Amino acid sequence: MRSPILGYLDTVIEETAHISAGDVAGYIPELAAADPDRVAIALCTVNGTVYSSGDVDHRFSIQSMSKPFAYALAIEDHGLGAVLDNVGVEPSGEAFNELSLDPETGKPRNPMINAGAIATHALLKSDEESSVERMLKLFSQLTGRQIDIEEAVAASELGAGDRNLGLAHLLRAAGALAQEPGPAVEGYIRQCAASVTVRDLALMAATLANAGVQPETGEQVLRRQTTRQVLSVMASCGMYDAAGDWLSTVGIPAKSGVAGGIIGVLPGQIGVVVFSPRLDPHGNSARGIEMMKRLSEDLGLHLMDTGRPARSSLRETRTVIVEGQPATIYVLQGDLVLSSIESLVHEIIEHPPQTDLIIFDMSRVDEVHAVARRTSSDMATKLVEEGHQIILIDPDETVTDFQDSQGRPVERWSPHRLEQATEGPER
Amino acid sequence: MRSPILGYLDTVIEETAHISAGDVAGYIPELAAADPDRVAIALCTVNGTVYSSGDVDHRFSIQSMSKPFAYALAIEDHGLGAVLDNVGVEPSGEAFNELSLDPETGKPRNPMINAGAIATHALLKSDEESSVERMLKLFSQLTGRQIDIEEAVAASELGAGDRNLGLAHLLRAAGALAQEPGPAVEGYIRQCAASVTVRDLALMAATLANAGVQPETGEQVLRRQTTRQVLSVMASCGMYDAAGDWLSTVGIPAKSGVAGGIIGVLPGQIGVVVFSPRLDPHGNSARGIEMMKRLSEDLGLHLMDTGRPARSSLRETRTVIVEGQPATIYVLQGDLVLSSIESLVHEIIEHPPQTDLIIFDMSRVDEVHAVARRTSSDMATKLVEEGHQIILIDPDETVTDFQDSQGRPVERWSPHRLEQATEGPER
Amino acid sequence: MRSPILGYLDTVIEETAHISAGDVAGYIPELAAADPDRVAIALCTVNGTVYSSGDVDHRFSIQSMSKPFAYALAIEDHGLGAVLDNVGVEPSGEAFNELSLDPETGKPRNPMINAGAIATHALLKSDEESSVERMLKLFSQLTGRQIDIEEAVAASELGAGDRNLGLAHLLRAAGALAQEPGPAVEGYIRQCAASVTVRDLALMAATLANAGVQPETGEQVLRRQTTRQVLSVMASCGMYDAAGDWLSTVGIPAKSGVAGGIIGVLPGQIGVVVFSPRLDPHGNSARGIEMMKRLSEDLGLHLMDTGRPARSSLRETRTVIVEGQPATIYVLQGDLVLSSIESLVHEIIEHPPQTDLIIFDMSRVDEVHAVARRTSSDMATKLVEEGHQIILIDPDETVTDFQDSQGRPVERWSPHRLEQATEGPER
Amino acid sequence: MRSPILGYLDTVIEETAHISAGDVAGYIPELAAADPDRVAIALCTVNGTVYSSGDVDHRFSIQSMSKPFAYALAIEDHGLGAVLDNVGVEPSGEAFNELSLDPETGKPRNPMINAGAIATHALLKSDEESSVERMLKLFSQLTGRQIDIEEAVAASELGAGDRNLGLAHLLRAAGALAQEPGPAVEGYIRQCAASVTVRDLALMAATLANAGVQPETGEQVLRRQTTRQVLSVMASCGMYDAAGDWLSTVGIPAKSGVAGGIIGVLPGQIGVVVFSPRLDPHGNSARGIEMMKRLSEDLGLHLMDTGRPARSSLRETRTVIVEGQPATIYVLQGDLVLSSIESLVHEIIEHPPQTDLIIFDMSRVDEVHAVARRTSSDMATKLVEEGHQIILIDPDETVTDFQDSQGRPVERWSPHRLEQATEGPER
Repeated sequence: MRSPILGYLDTVIEETAHISAGDVAGYIPELAAADPDRVAIALCTVNGTVYSSGDVDHRFSIQSMSKPFAYALAIEDHGLGAVLDNVGVEPSGEAFNELSLDPETGKPRNPMINAGAIATHALLKSDEESSVERMLKLFSQLTGRQIDIEEAVAASELGAGDRNLGLAHLLRAAGALAQEPGPAVEGYIRQCAASVTVRDLALMAATLANAGVQPETGEQVLRRQTTRQVLSVMASCGMYDAAGDWLSTVGIPAKSGVAGGIIGVLPGQIGVVVFSPRLDPHGNSARGIEMMKRLSEDLGLHLMDTGRPARSSLRETRTVIVEGQPATIYVLQGDLVLSSIESLVHEIIEHPPQTDLIIFDMSRVDEVHAVARRTSSDMATKLVEEGHQIILIDPDETVTDFQDSQGRPVERWSPHRLEQATEGPER
Repeated sequence: MRSPILGYLDTVIEETAHISAGDVAGYIPELAAADPDRVAIALCTVNGTVYSSGDVDHRFSIQSMSKPFAYALAIEDHGLGAVLDNVGVEPSGEAFNELSLDPETGKPRNPMINAGAIATHALLKSDEESSVERMLKLFSQLTGRQIDIEEAVAASELGAGDRNLGLAHLLRAAGALAQEPGPAVEGYIRQCAASVTVRDLALMAATLANAGVQPETGEQVLRRQTTRQVLSVMASCGMYDAAGDWLSTVGIPAKSGVAGGIIGVLPGQIGVVVFSPRLDPHGNSARGIEMMKRLSEDLGLHLMDTGRPARSSLRETRTVIVEGQPATIYVLQGDLVLSSIESLVHEIIEHPPQTDLIIFDMSRVDEVHAVARRTSSDMATKLVEEGHQIILIDPDETVTDFQDSQGRPVERWSPHRLEQATEGPER
Repeated sequence: MRSPILGYLDTVIEETAHISAGDVAGYIPELAAADPDRVAIALCTVNGTVYSSGDVDHRFSIQSMSKPFAYALAIEDHGLGAVLDNVGVEPSGEAFNELSLDPETGKPRNPMINAGAIATHALLKSDEESSVERMLKLFSQLTGRQIDIEEAVAASELGAGDRNLGLAHLLRAAGALAQEPGPAVEGYIRQCAASVTVRDLALMAATLANAGVQPETGEQVLRRQTTRQVLSVMASCGMYDAAGDWLSTVGIPAKSGVAGGIIGVLPGQIGVVVFSPRLDPHGNSARGIEMMKRLSEDLGLHLMDTGRPARSSLRETRTVIVEGQPATIYVLQGDLVLSSIESLVHEIIEHPPQTDLIIFDMSRVDEVHAVARRTSSDMATKLVEEGHQIILIDPDETVTDFQDSQGRPVERWSPHRLEQATEGPER
Repeated sequence: MRSPILGYLDTVIEETAHISAGDVAGYIPELAAADPDRVAIALCTVNGTVYSSGDVDHRFSIQSMSKPFAYALAIEDHGLGAVLDNVGVEPSGEAFNELSLDPETGKPRNPMINAGAIATHALLKSDEESSVERMLKLFSQLTGRQIDIEEAVAASELGAGDRNLGLAHLLRAAGALAQEPGPAVEGYIRQCAASVTVRDLALMAATLANAGVQPETGEQVLRRQTTRQVLSVMASCGMYDAAGDWLSTVGIPAKSGVAGGIIGVLPGQIGVVVFSPRLDPHGNSARGIEMMKRLSEDLGLHLMDTGRPARSSLRETRTVIVEGQPATIYVLQGDLVLSSIESLVHEIIEHPPQTDLIIFDMSRVDEVHAVARRTSSDMATKLVEEGHQIILIDPDETVTDFQDSQGRPVERWSPHRLEQATEGPER
């Protein structure tokens, strides 16, 4: 059975086929020669499932879609504070190629405009490997295959690099460029010439959606905090001078590239990528924007309207006999975040357990946020104080610091031991 | 047992007590006389549970925190398109009292700045009730109690209304004000003088978080689409000229008021409100911002880092004997959105059901998004084509248009009938 | 004999008759009803000779051409410093109806934009007479006839006054308006509705050119320092957002009005006025600009290219026998400014007088600038020190403080006495 | 006898000696090492007389004061239209080192900011000599001595040239730079490193004041139209972001350099130069500005207040017997411009000559503007039509095209012939 999601993607491509507005980028021959009718879509879930349609194997240069990832790497290299000292996070309200140095600080306004992206590239550490090699290595980790540079594109861009060189010299003059202008611009231009497919980009986007964990390999490529920052900046500064319109209409943190790609990320859920080379006057793919709007609307991907998560971490409450003693088992699931742990706490307070023995079964729990750890620890302490005995089933050790008020760790059983000990539901 | 969440809120208040920077608003006596040491926090989940700490019953004027709700009411009155024809959605990049009319369109840039808020108020229908009465009625629906105006505040603001009158006249001159300047400003000023507590605001915020459904009453006060738009604009334009910094640091769509309140909304999860009258130079509560940062960080409320929802809508798959026939039961749960329904579809494709009879138990499903309806309908059609028989358990009629390829509705059973018919797990 | 200058003006009107671009101002019926083909030119020299051609008796509203004169009156009322405290002098670089309050000071940028003109009008003293009566009185002094208001224009403008009211309220809010917004706007609008002809305006302009002295009546209507400031602001801010282009192309400090007039002033020489109601997109008379360009080019009126003045104040040097004694007579003429007095001093130093007796004949001197007074006084002192005797012929007492190094005033003769005493040229 | 003007200049230096605000430019060692207490003033009249005081032989780099002259040379090379196609004339309203490309045209706003000055230098023809050699040659023509480059300054500036290189690359990217960025910036920097004294600069300024004629050599170094354009741009754009304040307070078209010089030009009269290395926050010499204010005020150099020229071109009217026939002799003088010729025409119309024979004695006329030529020719034609006979005394051939209505040239006599023929005053 072919997934209905694939059929849906085919439909989006078909139903946007009439959009022929705009022109392919014309400032270098390699982009000008692009086939304007190429089109592709790819989605990748945080579980690593990729759905794609159209010219899924067509390679094109990543261009400005590389900016969020260079920003991520700079944060990994130096920490967020040091990067913020060099590049701001405010929307520029201006076209993509404006200077946009903050008049007070001299810093580029954000890392999604060229000035900020050049300053960001120049921050990348390059002790053992060059900054470009490091970017290619990152792209390769994110996509799971070796990513290379389209040398013809890079060479052409270098030949037409006056604007970027201008920005770099001005940054240097303002003390906001960590390298010499020439090498910084060359590195930035090569970063932008990395050759990718929509599938590659979907995996890259899904890694951002998945808090830095590449969903196919499970590798933590970027730190959770890093991806949060990158997504925030994509949300406020990613789509140039119509940030408010994009956020309200499409509602997906995104970044476009002048070769025709747009990469979008719905945090915690999915990476979305579209490709079509004809650009609107803002330099964004005209048909790509339309496809993104369709995807957002049809798939419910709007950041402000993504549906409530399953209401509770509490999958099930059962009362059983364990080793001859009545016990209340709370089976938890999913990520324990505020809204889910709050439901659990609320339930326990409203309907206090009637047994001395309480078992928290966390076998199905994926991840425990700090707030959930603290809150559930507080609650456990109080339950112990009220005379309850607590047993934790936590084979993945998602919580490691549960302890009672005397500081003693709570008792831990394996799922197997619980199964063995359970004598059946209480009658 | 007192909820540990309450204890946490106490801690936030204690640990920000040292922040005494800033001054209470001084432009009218009523605000200047505010006790600068008042402080309060309130949270309200989409389930309607309120947690609050500090001066929870202290009343203050809602001020600019009324703007998102007036914007919502204007959209309900006229539809989004008509409102967008009058007021934009782009961040102004300027202080709250700037003119900020778009030089090309003459429209105010967004409804969160004063010019846009006056234009928005002027759009409100006022056939039977005045626009101010309608705002109070909306506030009352959102908070579950009668909301009134602080008349002394309104009178003082009217006396100091030159800037707002100036904006209103300029809007009128630009053809961007649907009323006479005088009444428009008076209505807007009275809207801003509504008297509220942090608990009131928390319920108002939670209604936005809950897609327009007031979580205590269950009433659909605002349409889902309306709240999505309101939250988008709060995200990009809510915190004045540091939108990018707020979004990356705090990550909660928000709006502040000059009396010291800040209202934040994490879509699908929670409303968050803080109050402290001392303002920073931008006109935002200084301690309030600090409390919001703490809450965001500690409670994991950042929009770009809210944890993945429970991965699947699929609560359980069981094989049972139903009326003598082996059947696969898929028990679904929560909101069916793309990421959850995708997991279900993926599961069925990877592990096709081995029985002819398939039962989808949707008793625990809350809401079904369009994408889930379409995708599951496609899948159901394919299963029928492959020879399966489908029974739907859907007591709340969350899906009403399931049908097979001949257009015949699928068979529906009540949960009771399923229970009766089930002879036990297959052995 | 008809003056060839009149013939020239006829030619300018004929040769610009083809210019039909632009539209008459349409925002009030009174302006919209203007006959677009009306056209007139008037020049007035600093001697009071008026040359005019076309619809010279046609009356129209003065509109923004009133601004320089209200600015002048405010300076007369309060002194320049106090006016500068309220209204700046920098070009706004923006269209005529923009807010243009200086972001740092809150002051309007200059008195030629509406915000600045309203603030300026509000500064006018109005103890015994209203500010509007005072403006009309000033206009009457400048034109030599009773100037009245076109009441229909004033009434219409008041009905369409939202933009000006908006500006006035914003000025008031910024502490930059000395009156209530309503009366200030009404006064300003009435000032702009004064009814004038090109001849009236030419006299007004010539008074500015003539250092504040109305050339027909000889009355010092405005102080010299005041006109200097007014002309400076007209030069840098008079023609809205193309100040640089106007200054380099036309080179005449100027101000236009929306009824179709343009008033220009070449300091020390001439007032120039053109009228044609069709406006270009900037709100300036389209044909009027063309006529001004022609006049500037053909008549050599460019501020940066007005020819060198007669090179010397020294009309003649004669050696005569006066009362039996050889004497050198220096006959001076014109205004004694730096460049002219410098020539005199240079001459005396290079060719020292060979007689003991030196006579300065100042009968033909018009005005003596401070620098000339100081310089010539220094020179006289030195001549006395070198043993010369000085006699001053100065019937108009243009210099009153000539004295020798002992502080004794120099000897003064009447022209008659000199004539009587002169025995003929030295042989 | 020492000229009292020199004494005055000494006084200005003494009385501004207390001004020690500001710092010498610090961005390169050569400027940072400047002796901050150096000070000098020089004036040069259009007759070539130089007055100077202070460190008159001290050499410093011309810096931005070279910009007006490079602009002049570009206009000479290509004509004004072609230069305007590349560089605008509008004030930038921004600091001296801002980009200031016009957002619509991509051109630099004016030739006085760095971007415009680089673009201007790049326009200079360099077929046989380099653009720098041509600038040095121009400087040498203007000053009457060989001007060279301070090589240490040029080298240092090149090493600190990131901002200028940035501007140049951006100009190149916008299609607004006629050379490669590197050579353009190097040329511009070398132009700015020319080594000059205040005396040199005073001669340069006086040439601009004198309509392009170097007053010592009498050489027409620049065309009259060129100097008019240069002075216009200095007036509106010369003093950076306070153009309006400078024009109203000082009223002298001017340009400052970062080494501490300020050059000012009063058209038709004088060049004024001050020097003091300490700079205010705008990059202008702090004491220099104060000295310019003093000079403007004391010497009456304000463009809007320079005194009326000698009122008439008519030096004298005499009735004599010439070759037995009564004749009216009109003795003209000075430059014949509108205001002077108008007086003559006015006189003739009001008091028509009573003799058939009319003699215009133009021996003392300096220059005849187009308007005077046309007007006097018209008048001559009419006089001939009325039966008069005209004789022209015009040894310098200031007018060459006088003719009667049949197109016959008027009769011309030498002054000597007139003297011989004159039989004495009519009795």
